[in-house]
Amino acid sequence: MKKIGVVLSGCGVFDGSEIHEAVLTLLAIDRNGCEAVCMAPDMELDEVNHLTSEPTGARRNVLAESARIARGRIRNISDVKAADLDAVIFPGGYGAAKNLCNFAEKGAGASIHPDVARLLKEMALAKKPIGAICIAPALIAAALGKELRPKVTIGTDAGTAAAINATGSEHVDCPVTEFVVDKENKIVTTPAYMLAKRISEACEGIDKTVKAVVGLI
Amino acid sequence: MKKIGVVLSGCGVFDGSEIHEAVLTLLAIDRNGCEAVCMAPDMELDEVNHLTSEPTGARRNVLAESARIARGRIRNISDVKAADLDAVIFPGGYGAAKNLCNFAEKGAGASIHPDVARLLKEMALAKKPIGAICIAPALIAAALGKELRPKVTIGTDAGTAAAINATGSEHVDCPVTEFVVDKENKIVTTPAYMLAKRISEACEGIDKTVKAVVGLI
Repeated sequence: MKKIGVVLSGCGVFDGSEIHEAVLTLLAIDRNGCEAVCMAPDMELDEVNHLTSEPTGARRNVLAESARIARGRIRNISDVKAADLDAVIFPGGYGAAKNLCNFAEKGAGASIHPDVARLLKEMALAKKPIGAICIAPALIAAALGKELRPKVTIGTDAGTAAAINATGSEHVDCPVTEFVVDKENKIVTTPAYMLAKRISEACEGIDKTVKAVVGLI
Repeated sequence: MKKIGVVLSGCGVFDGSEIHEAVLTLLAIDRNGCEAVCMAPDMELDEVNHLTSEPTGARRNVLAESARIARGRIRNISDVKAADLDAVIFPGGYGAAKNLCNFAEKGAGASIHPDVARLLKEMALAKKPIGAICIAPALIAAALGKELRPKVTIGTDAGTAAAINATGSEHVDCPVTEFVVDKENKIVTTPAYMLAKRISEACEGIDKTVKAVVGLI
């Protein structure tokens, strides 16, 4: 059974992984006959109250919160190598842009969590497919833009697209139920909740993205 | 558009709502052309570390944690009446048995959160359909067993089934991808992660359950 890494960044759209995107990714991986390997970095995040969208000032652990989505079956990303995986997928949520890197604050000049950067480089070097959803393509752009100049989408947001282009990557506008494939780099991206008004819209783009990732293995 | 309440109990299988079940319920509601109305009680839960399955001793707010699954769009269940809804569905997770009631500790003699008990009685009186997933049918049994003697399933677990029967309800064994309908009481239940080994199995039972609930409106 092919193993697809799912890199989580917490549990909740405002301070971690977007939960719907993460779960729909796990569902699509299973339905494509593959095994999901959930992982996250062992680091702290800044907690946001999801009722008010306001930071609380408290901190939570990214790995322990991500374990909620993974029902406890999760690995520390520092222990995962590209050799363990056939592909990797990054769901969105602010955690992808605040915890796995600091794109939300720094834009094109973002620094990437060292283990995320390492795994992405290993995957790219091994020519193994990389999927990214919602805002997570900005993380891929910031991590791999200079070397690979990948084509990615986060939908149609002009400011984010400009920041992605500034990394050396190329942003391509894309509707919510579709996806963008960079065949040369084996990178597949979809807008999901960057554009979705309904969970079924996000699901359609994610289903297509996961299928395309599996097809590139 | 028909409105289907989704009663959440936190965010994470060990101390709140089972996240996969909750998200798959929201997806199925959307795909059936209905609107999900997420709600949860404003109360505290006992936090469990989902890496270790151990209680941490800390507490979290059920409504604020449930808001993570609802992407911030959630109501306090104390403000929701049966008149606002066409149906209601309870995803599983320990939160359904520890926060919405204390079935996990007390079994058939469980007491029910007052607003959950009130809403369930209002829905039953109005002959509006009730769905319940995983362990949540035990909550329905404890809340409505004496009056309605509903038929429900939590799968095949003999101890839980006996506790459900002790409420006056009738437990019916059911495989993971199927569901049980009590037509007289308009109650639909499915085992999901009481039995599921894979997310796609849970999804199949939940899809059928939501469709059956919608069909009973």
